[in-house]
Formats: sequence, structure tokens, C-alpha cells
Amino acid sequence: MFSKIRELLIGKTLKTEELEGEKLNIFWGLPILSSDAVSSVAYAGEEILYVLIGVIGLMAYKYMFYAALCVVLLLVLLVFSYRQTIDSYPCGGGSYIVAKDNLGTIPGLTAGASLTIDYILTVAVSISAGTAAITSAMPSLYQHKVAIALAMLLLITIGNLRGVRESSKLFGVPTYIFILSCVVLIVTGILRHYIFGYSPEALYAIPKATGDITLFLFLRAFASGCTALTGVEAVSNGIPNFKKPSQKNAKAVLALLAFLVFFIFVGLSFLSTIYHAVPVPHMTVIAQISQQVFGKGIMFYVIQVTTAIILVLAANTAYAGLPLLLSLMGQDGYVPRQFSQRGKRLSFSNGIILLAVAAAILIVVFKGDTHSLLPLYAVGVFISFTLSQVGMFLKWKRSRTPGWKHKAFINGLGAIVTFITVILIGITKFFHGAWLVFIIIPLLVYFMMKIKNHYNKVVEQIRLSNDQRPNVGMKTNNEQHVIILLGTLNKSFLKSLNCANSLSKNVVAFHVSTDVETTQKLKRKWKEYDPGIPLIIEHSAYRDVLGPLIDFIESEDRASKHGETVTVVLSQFVITKWWHNILHNQTGYFIKSMLYKNRNVAVLTVPYIIKE
Amino acid sequence: MFSKIRELLIGKTLKTEELEGEKLNIFWGLPILSSDAVSSVAYAGEEILYVLIGVIGLMAYKYMFYAALCVVLLLVLLVFSYRQTIDSYPCGGGSYIVAKDNLGTIPGLTAGASLTIDYILTVAVSISAGTAAITSAMPSLYQHKVAIALAMLLLITIGNLRGVRESSKLFGVPTYIFILSCVVLIVTGILRHYIFGYSPEALYAIPKATGDITLFLFLRAFASGCTALTGVEAVSNGIPNFKKPSQKNAKAVLALLAFLVFFIFVGLSFLSTIYHAVPVPHMTVIAQISQQVFGKGIMFYVIQVTTAIILVLAANTAYAGLPLLLSLMGQDGYVPRQFSQRGKRLSFSNGIILLAVAAAILIVVFKGDTHSLLPLYAVGVFISFTLSQVGMFLKWKRSRTPGWKHKAFINGLGAIVTFITVILIGITKFFHGAWLVFIIIPLLVYFMMKIKNHYNKVVEQIRLSNDQRPNVGMKTNNEQHVIILLGTLNKSFLKSLNCANSLSKNVVAFHVSTDVETTQKLKRKWKEYDPGIPLIIEHSAYRDVLGPLIDFIESEDRASKHGETVTVVLSQFVITKWWHNILHNQTGYFIKSMLYKNRNVAVLTVPYIIKE
Repeated sequence: MFSKIRELLIGKTLKTEELEGEKLNIFWGLPILSSDAVSSVAYAGEEILYVLIGVIGLMAYKYMFYAALCVVLLLVLLVFSYRQTIDSYPCGGGSYIVAKDNLGTIPGLTAGASLTIDYILTVAVSISAGTAAITSAMPSLYQHKVAIALAMLLLITIGNLRGVRESSKLFGVPTYIFILSCVVLIVTGILRHYIFGYSPEALYAIPKATGDITLFLFLRAFASGCTALTGVEAVSNGIPNFKKPSQKNAKAVLALLAFLVFFIFVGLSFLSTIYHAVPVPHMTVIAQISQQVFGKGIMFYVIQVTTAIILVLAANTAYAGLPLLLSLMGQDGYVPRQFSQRGKRLSFSNGIILLAVAAAILIVVFKGDTHSLLPLYAVGVFISFTLSQVGMFLKWKRSRTPGWKHKAFINGLGAIVTFITVILIGITKFFHGAWLVFIIIPLLVYFMMKIKNHYNKVVEQIRLSNDQRPNVGMKTNNEQHVIILLGTLNKSFLKSLNCANSLSKNVVAFHVSTDVETTQKLKRKWKEYDPGIPLIIEHSAYRDVLGPLIDFIESEDRASKHGETVTVVLSQFVITKWWHNILHNQTGYFIKSMLYKNRNVAVLTVPYIIKE
Repeated sequence: MFSKIRELLIGKTLKTEELEGEKLNIFWGLPILSSDAVSSVAYAGEEILYVLIGVIGLMAYKYMFYAALCVVLLLVLLVFSYRQTIDSYPCGGGSYIVAKDNLGTIPGLTAGASLTIDYILTVAVSISAGTAAITSAMPSLYQHKVAIALAMLLLITIGNLRGVRESSKLFGVPTYIFILSCVVLIVTGILRHYIFGYSPEALYAIPKATGDITLFLFLRAFASGCTALTGVEAVSNGIPNFKKPSQKNAKAVLALLAFLVFFIFVGLSFLSTIYHAVPVPHMTVIAQISQQVFGKGIMFYVIQVTTAIILVLAANTAYAGLPLLLSLMGQDGYVPRQFSQRGKRLSFSNGIILLAVAAAILIVVFKGDTHSLLPLYAVGVFISFTLSQVGMFLKWKRSRTPGWKHKAFINGLGAIVTFITVILIGITKFFHGAWLVFIIIPLLVYFMMKIKNHYNKVVEQIRLSNDQRPNVGMKTNNEQHVIILLGTLNKSFLKSLNCANSLSKNVVAFHVSTDVETTQKLKRKWKEYDPGIPLIIEHSAYRDVLGPLIDFIESEDRASKHGETVTVVLSQFVITKWWHNILHNQTGYFIKSMLYKNRNVAVLTVPYIIKE
């Protein structure tokens, strides 16, 4: 029943060979890999304004524009840095790989942990912001925003469990529509203002200034704006998805992406400045601007809807990114290996589910509020930027290939600037939530080391050398100790007995008596039936079957030759309806899991199928 | 670790022989078996008033007193009826047993289901009312009432899991203090009013009358008051707990109990009438009366505290009753048999946990509000009263022992009156919640029948007749088909191989290839190591190990002689730290549970212990 529901939701199981999908050219690669970066302009500008306007009032617009320019300059630097990463890592150069290759395990894991946190936050933030776009258009839905966000999350999760690759070109369309609508919005907005002198009233009152601009405040605004840069590294991670020449195509997409973010981010910031949009909970800044520019007509709704869609698509890129990252780390043994296994539909389903659950928790805890989530965001991305740039810098320094100095300079500069940005974000947003990230990253790294340590120990303990030979001498003795656990003398026991008899001549039945009367009855029945093997009965005062059984096994164990395994036979009812399980006690299960802890015990389970 | 926490909470495991506890005499039996009945006066009177006062205002006090008198008359009738049950069922005559013995299965199960519901409601109602007593004394705690109720619930549950028998005499003390304080309250209240002419203002405004008294309203008030009669049958269930002559002692306790309920219920109702207490959420009627009579002094707090304690003790009687009832029904196979097993501390722990969880859900859903819970209450008890009385009536009619007519008359009258009461409660409280009970009881009965049916089928299918003999011919052939599932060639596999070799000469290794590269590596290693058994490799396009394995087993199965079992050997890592389990995939567990569904497969699990 469960598997039918699963098939309905996520589709039929796929063959491993079906993995090779279609590759992307520049035209489709751009929208698909850029949705994260492009969509972040939907909240980054608003966030800058949110930081400033409460303190310096009307002056906020001026400094918002400056902060946006700083963010965009940083973007240009990142593009040049990442072009070099694309050249050096043709199979995809995620920060985890670059840092691990060039800086060592701990920096690699730090990058991995940072990215993990940021992918989860990408989903939570993007979906919350997408919900905000919807509730801006339909204010009556505002009170249901957590439910809406969770529903969207569920939809993306199911889509990704199905494996969304097939339809991914379709995903490019809304991104292009969004980009186009933004261009139309910016151009129309500027023309109406400067050519036609259109200056509408602000929709919401601008708060009065309560203080003056300070360096700290400006830096905080800049740090908030840096969320616009998340998703830039998606392109360098995604190289294998490009058509050949894939590196060249990736670099072209990266340049176009930067141009788009530049234009839209600066353009929207400028519009906020001239139209005096004010960050309020019920209506996003973009919604305010588009209402002022277009009125509440068709274009207003197009912009809200495409904003929502592109934000959901941005969440979708995290669904591609995190499971892949976890599968790489799983192969290296730093996270549970299950993350490296492909599910029924070839997606890394465990990673997808982890991501969905973590994002859902964040959405519920932060009540789907973008403002509360953003201070946690971007820290992780910039840590991974820094580690990746430092790694690249060292790579050039070590390789000393022609032109290495120039390349090392670019990555070195990138490293320094992104490192400074980490510090800035860390300090300015520390008490707003960034402290949490600084606690969680080291914890994650610690656990990853522990996991690796465990896997190493397992490998050590199970490694087989050629001089450890099978015990062929035992092959024919046919006298293995076999103990059948006897509860009631019934057909299920008979089946176990037949099975045991076929494996050994040395079979005994063992009964633990917890009730004198039952045992007497069993004894009589046993005598009458006479199954031809000895019956051993032990009394247990504490109604505990396990203790006497283990004592008995140990006495048998001592009697047997060293190193031989005692086989314990358990009958198990197999029931066709799942709910019937609650009608049978699960003692067998507990007995087994305790028996496994004994080095020289093997457990033979003989199923007995109960019909209906 | 878990077992240590359990030991700390519920104490050391007890021996079965320690079951025989101390028996009760009349002096201790009275408070212990009457706490449920006596405590219900704490809310029954208030509930009558609550029904009346909103409609007929000041007139409510007059009719409250009449309703209370009717309830008390019913009580007297019940006492006479139950005296006869005590005589006939010296081992305890719960309604389930009486109805099943005399009326048949369905009435017995109906009584059982009704009682189950009512025991659960007893706990929810008593604890909610106990919380109300506490919050009446300390109004600032009112907002935390759900949390307080759940904390008390947890406490009783732990106490009962420990087995509270030892300390049960201690439980008699607060009941006596409560009875004594009630007597003092009633006497002082009446004296102050009639002798000293003391007539304080009502603490809360009496609502204006909005209508006139109707028969329906009066009957609804009476039905609400019937909650005072829950717990009366506790005495007849508890006969085995009495010192000899146990039936005589039980009858004496029953008579004393009836006298106490009579006196306190009528007394408190009378006080409500003269002091004009008004049911309000923040302060119980008893609290209002005691504040008026004594002022907010020591006596006020004594009454609140002992009320709270006796209500908690009333919940405690359900903890004794329901698990016992479920264990009886479990022995008969109408509820899962696990309810018949005694836990570590000899209590029927499964029943206790079920009761606690169900009551906790009720408390949370109804927000710990006694008024919302009470309409569901009492229906079940009166159904079980009716069934029990009808059963007794038929018993007398069939036995025709001397004086049977007289006895049949009493039980017959009891049956008629309690049946009418069921109808009254059902009709007057139907839309207030009683409908729920009328849906749940038939559902429970239906499931009980299904459960019995399943157990019957199991017994049929496993019954062993003496002519079904063990297959002794197989005993020495030593050629059983044994298949070892091979993942990686390691020490764990070697252990499995040794174990398999010691049981059969016919061992093959089976590997399912999901990845070409891994399989090639395995093949090379196998050739090099040469374990001396054949290796069979199947490719699985869908990364599914189970399908190819079952196909292979079935081909082996056909090759083997009919009826023989194919043994599948699985290695299992045994890990010392529980959290390490998430680092290893649980495929083995799924493979096993699917293999069990095949009639001719036995699964041999060979544990391999990983240290640290």
C-alpha cells in the first residue's frame, strides 16, 4: 500500500542507465542556474532598506543605493574569481572540493558544513519570500503564510523526489519572464519619473529618522545586501550539466548572470529610491514599486506571480545542490553513506528529504518571516566563498603555471574581500541570529569527523587479509549446536524444528518458564508429542526470557569447541495485514537484537505465515 | 541507557512471586475504594448548577437540591443491586464479566468498551477537576491549567508503573481528611447560617433567569448529577483485595461509601443553595462555599488541597481498574494480548500507558476544562450498570435459588432505572458530546470482535495434531540449500561463511550488482581469495537487491525437494552506540522482512560486532 502511494507521488522506479539526461546550452543554462542569484534581488534590496529606514528615515534611500553599489562591486570581483575556478575544475568545483583539495580536511568540511546550512536557508528564505510575493498580491492570504510556504515546500520536494531533470527546461521560462518584467518595470519606472515627471505618494509612511548614519549601520546594510550574492557559485558547481564546450559555456552564463543581477539589483534599488518604497510586513518593496509604476493591473500581478515562481525555482536549485554535496561527502565518509545512494527515481532522495525537513522546521520556527531568517543567511555562503578563494590562491601559488601571479592575485583579492565580508556579516548580524551559524558550523564539522572516524574503524575491523581462511574443517561435522526457542508446541514450532533438523543433528529445544501452570501443560504435551529432541526448561522469576537464554547459550558455548557459533532458532509469525502486528508481541524482535550482541550466536528466523 | 532511566523512574524489576500484596480491612478499604465515588461530589453538584443557573437564575438552587435528591435515590438503589453482585461474584464482578457470563459476548464487550471509555474519562475529568481545585486557591495558575493537569497525569502514571500497591494505605489518609473537612464545612456552614444568621453576599453575580424550568432542563440537570455515581462499582470489582471475609467487608464498605456520598453530596448541594455559589471558570463551587464559610484561612486551603488530592486519587482508581479490565479482555483475546502481560514492576504496564496517553489527549483537546469533558462522562458507566443489572436479573431468573424473585426484582428494578438514566443522559447531553460515545462504543466492540477473530484464525492455523510429525528423514542429509548474501568480501562475510559451512555442504554466495565497477572489483577479489564456494552474480537495473534475490531463491526452491526450506544468510553489523545505526543503511532489515513473506525461506542472521 505504502509503495503504491509512493509510486503515485514520485513515479515509477527508474533504471540506473537512465541517469544521463540532456545537457544545457547557454540559453537554457542561464535561467536554470541563475534563478537563485537573480531571485535574491527580490529580498536583498528590501533588506538593506529595512536595516536603514528605521534609523535614518528618508536618508535611507541614498545610502541604500550606495550599499547596493558595494554589493554589485563585490559581485564583479566574485565573477572574475569564479571564472578561474571554472577553468581549474571542469567537473564542477564546489567549495567543498576546492577547499578539501587545496587546504585540507577541516577547511573542506567547514566549507561543506557552511554550504549545507546555506542551502537549507536558501530554501527557507526563498520560499518565505515567494510566499511574501503572493501575500502582497492577495493580502487576505497573509495570515496563512506558514501553511502556504509549507505547501510550496511539499510541492518542490515531491517534484525533486520524482527527479525534475526532465522538465527542467520548462523551469527556464518563468525566469526569463521575471527578468523581462523586471526590465520593463525598471525602464517604465525611470521613464515615467524622469520624462513624464510622475511622482506618486509613497504607499506607506516613511518612518521618522531617529538617528544618524554610522559606519556600523552602513556596513550592516551592506552585509544584508550580500544575500543578493548567494547562488553565484551555482554555475561553477554545475559545469557538468553544460553542453560542450562546457567550461566556455559556463563562463558565458556566469558573465550574463552577473550582468543581470547587476542591472536588476541596481535598477530596483534606484526605483525604491525615487518611489520611496517602505519595507512593511504585508507588502514587499517590489510589489509597492510595481503598484506605483503600473497601478494594480495585469503587470502588477505578472510581477508578483513571476517573483513567487522564480523564488520557488531558487529553492529548487538548493534541491539540486545540497543532495549532490551530501552525496560527495557521503562517498568520502563524512556524512552517513545513505546520502550517496540514489532513490527509486535516481535522485538522492535522502538528501532531498533532509533538506525538506530542515527547511520546514526553519519556516515553522521563524513563522515564514523572511526578515527573521535573513540574518542567519549569507554567513555560510561567504565562509565557503572565502575558503574556496583561499584554496584557489594556494593552488596557483603551488602550481606556478604561466600567468599564475595574475590568477593568484585575483583569487587572493577575492579571498581577502570575501573574508572581510564574513567578518562584517558576522559582527553586524551577530545578535540577530548569525551567532547560531557560528555555533552550528563547528558542531557539524565535529560530527563529520566523528562519522569519518567511525567508518574508518569499521573498515579496519572488517578488512579481510588473504591468510584469514574459511574454516573448512567445520564443513562436514554436522554437529553444530542449534537451540530452538520454544513457546508453544504448534505448527510454527514444527516448521522451525524441521528446518533445524535439516541443518544439524545437535538440536535442543529451550523453554523459559514464566508461569508454572503453562509450563506443566507444555511438559505434558511435549511428552505426548515426543518431537525426538531434548527439551530444556529454565524458570525465570522476572518474566524475562532473554537472561536464562543467554546463560544457557553461554554454557553451550563453553561446551562447544572454541570459535564455533551457536545457532538460535526463533519462529516468527508473518502477518499479512500490518495492523495485526499490534496483536502479537514483539518479544522476538527484542530477543534477536539482544542476541546479536553475543559474538558467537547466529539467529535463524523461521517465518510462519498466518493467512488473512 | 534507556533501561537505566526506566529503573530510576519506575524502580527495579520485581519477581512474579512478589505479586501477593497486603489485603485491606474495612477501615482502609473504605478510603481506597471510595475515592472515585466520593471525589465526584466535587464536580457533580457544580455541574447540576451549571446546567440550571444559566436558564432559570436564582431558581436553580431549589431545583439543584431536587436533582441531587434524585441522584442520591438512584445511589441507594445501586447499592442494593451491587450488594447482590458482591454475593454472586466473590472474585470480583466487573460489568464485563457479569454481562459476558449472563448475556453473551456482544453485551459483555459493550460493557467492556463502555467501561474502557469511562475509565479514560475518569482520569481526564478527575485530573481536570483537581486542577480546578488548585487554580481556585491560586488563581494565577489558571492559565497554566493544561500543563498542571499533564504534570499530575505524568506523576500518577509513573507511580502506577512503579506499582503503587505498597503505598496504597497512605492513599487512605487524604480521603479521610477530605471527608472530615467536608463534614466540618457542612456542619459549620449550616450552623453559621441557621444559628448565627450568617448570610454573606454571593461571591459572583447570579445570572438573570432567561427562561422557566422545563422537564427537559431538570432531566438534563439530573443527568449531569449522575456523574456523582461513577466509581460505585469499584467496590464490587475490588473484592479480591479485601481481607476475609472479603464479601462481607466489601458490602460494609459499599454501605459506608453510599452513606458518605449521600451525606456530602446532599450537604454540599444544600450549602450551595443557602450560600448561592455560582459556577464560574476561575473558582469552583466548593471553593466559593468554603471561602464564604471559613474566610480565606487555613481551612479554605485545606479543603482545596484535599479536594485536589482526592481527585487525583480518583484518577488513580482508574489506573487500577482499566489495566485489570484490559488484562481480562486480553486473556479472552478481545484486545491485544500484550495487555495481559505484567511489566517489570508487575503492573499491567501496557494498559497503564494506554490510559495515560488517552487521558492526556483528552486533557489537551478539551483544554483541561471539566465542563467540556463531563457530557461525555457517565454515559459509559450507566451503560455498564444497565448491562450488569440485566445480567444479574437473568442470572437469578435462570438459577431459581431460594429467594430469587426478591433478588431478581432488585436487580431488575436497578436495570430499568439505570437504563432510563442512560436514555436520559444520552438524550439530554447528546449534542454536548454524548454522541461521540455512542459512536465509539460500537466501533470498539467491532474492533474487539475483529481481534478475537484474528486470534482464532491464528490458533486454528498453528494447532498441531499428533499425526503431523517432524521430518526426521531430513535430519542427516546435510545438503540444505544455503545462500549467503554477499556485499563486500570482508571479515563479516567470512564469519557468515564459517557459520554456513558448519550447517551445510551446499552453500552458494549471491551478489546483486548495482554498479558495474564495484562488481568487477568484487569478482577480482573473489578470484584471488577463493573462498571455496560458488559465487552467483545478478545485475539489477533498479538498484534493488530484493527482486533478484527472491527470483534466485525461487529457482533454488524449485530445484530442491518439495517442502524444504532455503536458508538465506545475512551478515549484520552490530554497533555499540545507538547513533551509529544512522551511519549504516538498514537494507538488511528490509530484506529480512520481505524474505519472511516467502513460505520456504529461513533467514540466518550472523552478527558481526563492531567495537567502539
